[in-house]
Amino acid sequence: MSHTVTLLIEPLPADVDDIDPDSTFHAVAPSAPALRVAELSTQRGDGIFETIAVVDGHAQEVGPHLERLRASARITDLPEPNLEQWRRAIHRAVGELPAQGEYSVKIVLSRGIEGGPTPTAWLMGFPSADHRAAREHGIRAVTLDRGYDHGAAERAPWLLLGAKTLSYAVNMAALREAKRRGADDAIFVSSDGYVLEGPTSSVVMRIGDEVATPAATGQILPGTTQRSLFSHLVDAGSTATERDIRAEELARADAVWLVSSVRLAVPVVELDGRPVPFDAAETAAFNAYLLSPRD
Amino acid sequence: MSHTVTLLIEPLPADVDDIDPDSTFHAVAPSAPALRVAELSTQRGDGIFETIAVVDGHAQEVGPHLERLRASARITDLPEPNLEQWRRAIHRAVGELPAQGEYSVKIVLSRGIEGGPTPTAWLMGFPSADHRAAREHGIRAVTLDRGYDHGAAERAPWLLLGAKTLSYAVNMAALREAKRRGADDAIFVSSDGYVLEGPTSSVVMRIGDEVATPAATGQILPGTTQRSLFSHLVDAGSTATERDIRAEELARADAVWLVSSVRLAVPVVELDGRPVPFDAAETAAFNAYLLSPRD
Repeated sequence: MSHTVTLLIEPLPADVDDIDPDSTFHAVAPSAPALRVAELSTQRGDGIFETIAVVDGHAQEVGPHLERLRASARITDLPEPNLEQWRRAIHRAVGELPAQGEYSVKIVLSRGIEGGPTPTAWLMGFPSADHRAAREHGIRAVTLDRGYDHGAAERAPWLLLGAKTLSYAVNMAALREAKRRGADDAIFVSSDGYVLEGPTSSVVMRIGDEVATPAATGQILPGTTQRSLFSHLVDAGSTATERDIRAEELARADAVWLVSSVRLAVPVVELDGRPVPFDAAETAAFNAYLLSPRD
Repeated sequence: MSHTVTLLIEPLPADVDDIDPDSTFHAVAPSAPALRVAELSTQRGDGIFETIAVVDGHAQEVGPHLERLRASARITDLPEPNLEQWRRAIHRAVGELPAQGEYSVKIVLSRGIEGGPTPTAWLMGFPSADHRAAREHGIRAVTLDRGYDHGAAERAPWLLLGAKTLSYAVNMAALREAKRRGADDAIFVSSDGYVLEGPTSSVVMRIGDEVATPAATGQILPGTTQRSLFSHLVDAGSTATERDIRAEELARADAVWLVSSVRLAVPVVELDGRPVPFDAAETAAFNAYLLSPRD
């Protein structure tokens, strides 16, 4: 039983179902060179990815992650991924990871190598960072201008705002800027004042009895974990709404969380230097649900 | 004499001058796996690059390219590169490429591998595509909204607009959109109507006796080839200006070029479906200068 697993994958076309997916996986040591320098993933950030949480041997929300991978492929004009092949690769990785604890499985579909073969693909499984303190005690966030107005995605689909691409340099720069400002994380706001998303998370807030998140109408990535949480809240009789949220509304929310696949729901206890109310029991309930096996 | 060269490079800190740079270069076959899957270049498009033209054994504008690499490192909070090491790496690559013809040397400085070592670096030398037809007969371009307004870079430096990062997925998507529209290339325009740049080039236009390009005040990448050309034009007594340019002005220009290190100056003969005047002699003079040895 290893704590990491790396598989190189020969991507099958979406309509191929007569090749054994297991024959397309090639395990490599994580420290071994595996990618060519001509990889467009590395030259151009030209590819897409998903990060799937594995909790006590169960891969969470594999279906929604794979559906989002397919949506990202469509937005970026990549060949449609063979979801059954990816499902089998994730299954194999989970089988090689320990049966207890929190792990991450990251899957990458790259446009490939200039001149072919194209696309290329791989998977990495590894232990997740320990996010328990963030989940329990919260984090400080700052709002940062994303530069785009709220209508940019609809006007300019080549901005790829609804796709989870490998071109994350701006997301990483936003996290560094947050740290420079003495915070832990960032919340992007559109240039015309709408709440968007975190660099690696969805933004969820509560005002009174309503739990709300920005509607993913192309300008942000639809959040698999946020959607799972909202469906759970609605099933439990709560009001959970995807809608436009103004930055002013976020600033006076009764609670704010950043929600993502691996870190799960972390409460924002300080936003732009001002304290945000924080309900420990509500947050614990969110994370108890998010840590339970979900499909 | 090979037509390609790939060097993995152990990046030296900027202030180290007592290590032989040649001992930090490791040649690998271009088809060999060289990078680990945990590379942040490939996971996050988190790194910077430059592409340097090599014409008949002479690397063009190495100094300005390395200065821009240093500026990109500063914007992206990467360790300052050791320019002498890079200069030696480029020199070595040029020595291994044929003495005649047009080649490209691409240098990459990545944030490295999660958990170290960081940064990582490499160089690729390879034959340039044949751009003679584009230089002589021109290309068709379309303007595309970049989503940002003209002031976004100043307001939000974390957008990294003045850095040449590996996160080029949007640039590549813009080229695909241009092709969908029956064109060859794109010209980005800000959401408030200012001309910005091409996905991989600078925009140069002539109106009457003035040659002009958008001023690189943070919202676009400063163009090494455009600057070399402008300096040449000014030396020859022409008017060459870096200033704000409105999209309407571009639409009525007397000539438009996309200018970049390897393709050099290609005339835009059709913009958004309308013909653009095209002076073959002027373009040939630009490219004769750009093909001459430049430092």
